[in-house]
Formats: sequence, C-alpha cells, structure tokens
Amino acid sequence: MSVAEMLRTHPADFGGIDRDVLRRCIEECVACAQACTACADACLAEPDDVLPSLRKCIRINTDCADVCETTARVLSRHTNDVELTRAVLEACATVCRSCADECEQHASHHEHCRVCAEACRRCEQACREVIDGLAAGAGR
Amino acid sequence: MSVAEMLRTHPADFGGIDRDVLRRCIEECVACAQACTACADACLAEPDDVLPSLRKCIRINTDCADVCETTARVLSRHTNDVELTRAVLEACATVCRSCADECEQHASHHEHCRVCAEACRRCEQACREVIDGLAAGAGR
Amino acid sequence: MSVAEMLRTHPADFGGIDRDVLRRCIEECVACAQACTACADACLAEPDDVLPSLRKCIRINTDCADVCETTARVLSRHTNDVELTRAVLEACATVCRSCADECEQHASHHEHCRVCAEACRRCEQACREVIDGLAAGAGR
Amino acid sequence: MSVAEMLRTHPADFGGIDRDVLRRCIEECVACAQACTACADACLAEPDDVLPSLRKCIRINTDCADVCETTARVLSRHTNDVELTRAVLEACATVCRSCADECEQHASHHEHCRVCAEACRRCEQACREVIDGLAAGAGR
Repeated sequence: MSVAEMLRTHPADFGGIDRDVLRRCIEECVACAQACTACADACLAEPDDVLPSLRKCIRINTDCADVCETTARVLSRHTNDVELTRAVLEACATVCRSCADECEQHASHHEHCRVCAEACRRCEQACREVIDGLAAGAGR
Repeated sequence: MSVAEMLRTHPADFGGIDRDVLRRCIEECVACAQACTACADACLAEPDDVLPSLRKCIRINTDCADVCETTARVLSRHTNDVELTRAVLEACATVCRSCADECEQHASHHEHCRVCAEACRRCEQACREVIDGLAAGAGR
Repeated sequence: MSVAEMLRTHPADFGGIDRDVLRRCIEECVACAQACTACADACLAEPDDVLPSLRKCIRINTDCADVCETTARVLSRHTNDVELTRAVLEACATVCRSCADECEQHASHHEHCRVCAEACRRCEQACREVIDGLAAGAGR
Repeated sequence: MSVAEMLRTHPADFGGIDRDVLRRCIEECVACAQACTACADACLAEPDDVLPSLRKCIRINTDCADVCETTARVLSRHTNDVELTRAVLEACATVCRSCADECEQHASHHEHCRVCAEACRRCEQACREVIDGLAAGAGR
C-alpha cells in the first residue's frame, strides 16, 4: 500500500496528528475491513451444523468491515473537524472491540476467526492512538 | 424504497427498537448519503472563483456520505449489539450535524447546499430518535 | 429522497443523459442496495435447517448491495467519462440480474427474497435505460 | 494486510482461480482505493489557481475508490458466479485505466497524482490477470 507516500505528497498538514500514527491507523482500518469481509464469507462456508452458531459473527464482521472502510476514508481526507474525526474513530474502536470479542469465541475452532480477531485488536488500538493524538493536538 | 417491506418480512425481531423509528432512520441515512454525494459534486461544479471556498464543504459532504451509508447498513442488519449500534449512530448524528452546519453557511448562495443541509438535519434527528429508543429498550 | 432536487440544483448539465432516466436509476440503485443488505440479513435469520440453502443468496445479495451503492455514487457525480459510466452500469445490470435470479428461487418460501428480487429487476432495467441513453448521447 | 492468511484459512476453494493471482488483485484493489481517496483530497488541497484544473481528477479518483473497494469485497467473497465476478472486474479495470490516464496528466506537477496513477496501473493489470484466470477456469 502507498499510504505513507500519499501522506508525504499531500500538500496540507494534518491538524497536529502525528503522521506515523495516522498512517498506521489507515493501514490497520483497511486491513481490518478486508479481514472482516473475508471472515464473514469464510464463516458462511463452514459446514451446515456449524453455520447457525456463526450468525452473530457474520453480522458483526460485516458491520465492522463497513465501519473500518469508512474510517479509513475519513482519515485519508483532511477534513480537520476534530469532533467529526473523533466520533468516527470512537465508533470504529467500539465496533472493532465487539468484533474481536465475537471472533475470539470461535478462534479455537476457526483459524479465520483467530486471524480476524487479531486484525480487529490492532485496528482498535490504532484508532485509540489517533484519538489520544487528537486530544493532545486540541490542547495545543 | 422498500425499507418498510424489508423490515416487515424479516424473520427476526428488532431488539426492542420501534419499527417505524428504525425505518425512518434507515430511509433518512440513505437519502442523506445520496444528497451529500451529489452536493459534493455540485460544489465541485461551481465557478472557479467560488470553488476554493467550498473545499471544506466537499470534504465534509464526502465524509457524511460514507458515514450515513455505513449507518444505513448497520441498521439494516439485526446485529443486536446495542453498544455497537449506539456508537455508529452517535458518529452519524455528529457527522450529520457538522455537515449541516457547513452546508448552511453556503445555503443562501448554493441551493444544493440548502437541500443537503435539510437532509442532514433530518438524518441527525432520526439517528437521535433511534438512540433514545435504544436507551429505553436497554432499560427493559 | 431528494434525488430530483439534487439533480435540479446541480450547476452542470448531464452529458446528454435524460434527467428523469438518471434520477430513476439513482433511486433504484439506492433502493436495491438497501433491499439486498436487508435480504442478506433476513436470510441469515432463517431457521437452522433452511440457512445452509441460502448461502449463495446471502453472498450475491451482499455483492449486489456493494455494486448498487457504488453505481448510485458514480451516477450522482458528473464524471462525464462515458466509458467509465457504461462499464459500471453494465456491471450493475449483470449483478442485479444474478441476484434477482437467485432470490427468485427462494421467493415462494421467503417473502424478503420476493421483495428483493423485484428491487433487483427494477434496478437492472433502470441501468439498461441509462446505458441506452449513453449510446444515444454518444451518437450525437 | 492479512489477505494471504484469510485466503489460506477459508474453508472453500476458489472456483479455479489461482490463489496468488486472487490475493494480488485484492491487495491492489484495496491499495488503489486508498490511494484514490487520498489523491482526491490532495487535489482538493492544491492552491486556488490550480484547483479548477483538477475537477475531473477529483471526480474520477472518487469513482475509482468506490469501484476498487467494491471489487476487493466481491473478490473476498466466494460467490462463484463467474459472470458477476467478470463484470465487476471489467468495470474495475476500465475505471482504473481512466483514472490512471487522468492522474498521469497531472503527474509532473503533483506527485500524489504520480503515485496514484501507478497504483491504478497495477490494479488494472491485477484485474486483467484474474479475468484471464476466470476465462481459463471456465474452459476446464
């Protein structure tokens, strides 16, 4: 991915957010969205007797994919509305945590859930780091 | 749109959210997303001397379109994770308010901004009604 | 939805596409996307013994929701690249037909599939009308 | 990104598409979508006298981001409808080529357009490789 290059070549600055923290969060959101879309589909491909137990996992995976993609897009734009950015990041961190919690319950049986849960934890953490940076930036 | 029919024919219930409140919120999110995408493009088509003053409007419109679409999708699924649903709705209400505030500043000059601001206000209100319903449902 | 108002207030013209044909296609894409997201979730809520037979339906519904949303967005922008617009519309018509075919197989058992199939048929038809208009416009 | 791991842990096979070709295409679609969103925003941040010349670039970038994200999602699901998959890939290749052509016109003045054009070229190429694989698989 060319996230770092796109940040480097953007003509504007970033409203006080550290560029590496921002880059990492965009990368984790994009990776988590893909993992969640793939995990929902992998759950759907599990055997008939297992499939019903994965309903909730499929739904949360699909929600999480949507929210992470939106968050990656919002962070890729320099909207510079701190309240808007924080609200989206808070939603993303919350959804990633819910999705990680759900996927972890299936991680011992389904490796795709284990991989996806890890992507969600990293993404949640990356969102919280940007939120912390926003708070520090707003105080300047 | 067939939002009402799709809600009526869904085999599950809705975790205590009133079906009409939910329907209205999905419809407003979908309508607001389309209005915001169209308003961003209409701003981009304004004359050269006006265009630079619409940068922030284009960005917030595009963010708002993404967040409203994601919210419509999350509400169309019965994920039944109250915390997740509330977090997404709070983000959507916040973004709609920012977008309405920005569009209103251009409403007297650009009718597309006036129409879009109204769509954002309706969507923010519809999100808040579902949030209120979630709070009441959680108390049962 | 304010699709007609947003088209009316856009400062640019539409590259020779009839405004009512364009409006109808945007509206049908948006409606079809929502119906498909809701139908995928309704399928997922069907009883354990039925759920496995709906795997393909859930997947095509989700694909169709994504493609219809993207098509609505592309049509809401005046990109005026006829080849690009046609390629996206052709993909949307193809996906809508596949989704309608699949949903119709379940329509007698699941009313949500019947409603969704109708939305897909309307959307496919609306896409074909814009494609026909593009061809006529290009011939001018 | 965990694309390779998610493909490896998926319980189903891939309808005859080579797994590495599929992985590469998903990765390029995701990377191209992010680059296009960032390039549209970077264009929007260019000086007042340059901005009007970038209108078309902003629009195509935004279209391309939407189409690439949708394509990444469709490829991450095992829908196994060859006609549907091919239609989406054809649209994506077409849009990536248009976006690369447009960005290249600005590449000497704006480095973000140069980086984005390269991402679009790689994505177009990766889509065409999957299309070729679909044709070969269908002939078996």
